[in-house]
Amino acid sequence: MTATVHPLRSKAEPSLDPLIELVTSGMNGVNAVILERMQSKVALIPELAGHLIAGGGKRMRPMLTLASAALLGYPGTRHHKLAAAVEFIHTATLLHDDVVDGSGMRRGKRTANLIWGNFLFSRAFELMVEDGSLKVLSILSHASAVIAEGEVEQLTAQRRIDTGEEQYLAIISAKTAALFAAACRVAPVVAEASEQAELALECYGRNLGIAFQLTDDVIDYASDEAVMGKDAGDDFRDGKVTLPVILAHARADREDREFWRAAMAGERVSDADLTRAVSLLRSTGALSDTIERARHYGRRAIDALAIFPASKAKTALTEAVEFAIARAY
Amino acid sequence: MTATVHPLRSKAEPSLDPLIELVTSGMNGVNAVILERMQSKVALIPELAGHLIAGGGKRMRPMLTLASAALLGYPGTRHHKLAAAVEFIHTATLLHDDVVDGSGMRRGKRTANLIWGNFLFSRAFELMVEDGSLKVLSILSHASAVIAEGEVEQLTAQRRIDTGEEQYLAIISAKTAALFAAACRVAPVVAEASEQAELALECYGRNLGIAFQLTDDVIDYASDEAVMGKDAGDDFRDGKVTLPVILAHARADREDREFWRAAMAGERVSDADLTRAVSLLRSTGALSDTIERARHYGRRAIDALAIFPASKAKTALTEAVEFAIARAY
Repeated sequence: MTATVHPLRSKAEPSLDPLIELVTSGMNGVNAVILERMQSKVALIPELAGHLIAGGGKRMRPMLTLASAALLGYPGTRHHKLAAAVEFIHTATLLHDDVVDGSGMRRGKRTANLIWGNFLFSRAFELMVEDGSLKVLSILSHASAVIAEGEVEQLTAQRRIDTGEEQYLAIISAKTAALFAAACRVAPVVAEASEQAELALECYGRNLGIAFQLTDDVIDYASDEAVMGKDAGDDFRDGKVTLPVILAHARADREDREFWRAAMAGERVSDADLTRAVSLLRSTGALSDTIERARHYGRRAIDALAIFPASKAKTALTEAVEFAIARAY
Repeated sequence: MTATVHPLRSKAEPSLDPLIELVTSGMNGVNAVILERMQSKVALIPELAGHLIAGGGKRMRPMLTLASAALLGYPGTRHHKLAAAVEFIHTATLLHDDVVDGSGMRRGKRTANLIWGNFLFSRAFELMVEDGSLKVLSILSHASAVIAEGEVEQLTAQRRIDTGEEQYLAIISAKTAALFAAACRVAPVVAEASEQAELALECYGRNLGIAFQLTDDVIDYASDEAVMGKDAGDDFRDGKVTLPVILAHARADREDREFWRAAMAGERVSDADLTRAVSLLRSTGALSDTIERARHYGRRAIDALAIFPASKAKTALTEAVEFAIARAY
């Protein structure tokens, strides 16, 4: 094998900074709504909320709502409540993992988490109802149902090595990309932009969401480069049949296929097994090809923005896509 | 002690039959909506739905929406979707217990149940959005948030013998009565009835809900008369501090108070302990006085209907209240 010479990068590493900068003042508004709506006379609720805000993550989805509104030159603040609603829906769906994985968690806390999900959902809908747009309500209630369906389908696919790439794409389109798409689509509705703008931003969000999830799937097998909060190998131990595994399994010989079957079935979950898995994912090109697939969806997301004139917002949204994928390098 | 001679009942036992008869054809419509909206390309979803429909219970809340519409002479069918939405919200909140109590349940099934709750919530909101009334959306999203708050507050009160009657009433007003109230209030909104009719039906539903829950609390300590699906003593073993316990504790001497404290803290949960608890609940009059409290709210529910002229629907709604309370005899 000869060494590959990588071309020098023509610009700095893609960063989320332009997006963050674009929406800073808007996010103050969104965070104020989030804080306000987490209040309750029931003391445990703001307590749980505090915990949630502390570990609040990047708030990617509400930032997308704000940046999409900026792209359209929308001057109002109606979308702040809706961006908060999007974050509430996202958080409500996130709780499953917490609840289910926290086997050591105290029963009371587990129940609180469950109810908390319902509370967040209800608050999200209250915010949307206050805004008063039936179209927004329709977009977000439909997205919520699709997310839940996607999660159930993922559960069905879990531990099944026979999950195919098509099925996997359908799952992540539902469980991840639907909310990205809805988060973006809400902005043109509020801004009363054209149907064309609506579909373009929907398309941007959906493809970014798929690229984002595929990159996450790669990161889960790249511990030393882990950018996310979660440990490497979580998907492996949980038997989540993600695209890297689907590709590696398809390209494997008989012995390695048996390894993947057993691993996904939960029969091989030691550190040595994980090391072997990562080695197979690399040698078959499954990781780099998953990144290539992510790049494909990333390009589609960026191309969806073509109808909009150049602007700071367009640059920020474009670089957000590049950043999402570059996380896996 | 002398024997007490009870006066002969002037009429037959109160029954739910007039209500059921009143709404039979409407409930066919509601059930059709429920079945239709539980369909999904994800096979596990209709499967879970089938399970849910089999153990479907009485469908009390959608029946109340239908009977309230009948009371107002509403001739349309718009409320069928909304009654289905009410049942979906109710079922989504019900799942907590299943999830939490089913410690022996397989992890996959537990997760499915969790996601299922989100699915039901989303479907409920989709139905409401299709109906298109922001007022209905506001009533039901607010009720959902209140229910979740009530459930969290109940969790906070669990195992705490110092829970007072006022706090307990606030909890059941939120976790049970809010949805009864909303289920009834939806009908006058759809029927475009007066504000007065709306408030009257809200008041009917709220008070019926409280009476219903208090009666349930009594039934939980009356095994041989158990009408519900659940076993007697569930509340006792779970440390749920319900009104019968609050009253018995307040009326107890020092020794019995210590018994109640220990029992609610989970330190005394044997069958002998349950027998002692039932004996104390009876000797202090806590059970009969809880029924008396339920009767008070039941009377308020019936009085709220005073503004409506006599009709089959009014008779059915009145007898439903009497039935709810008579379950504890």
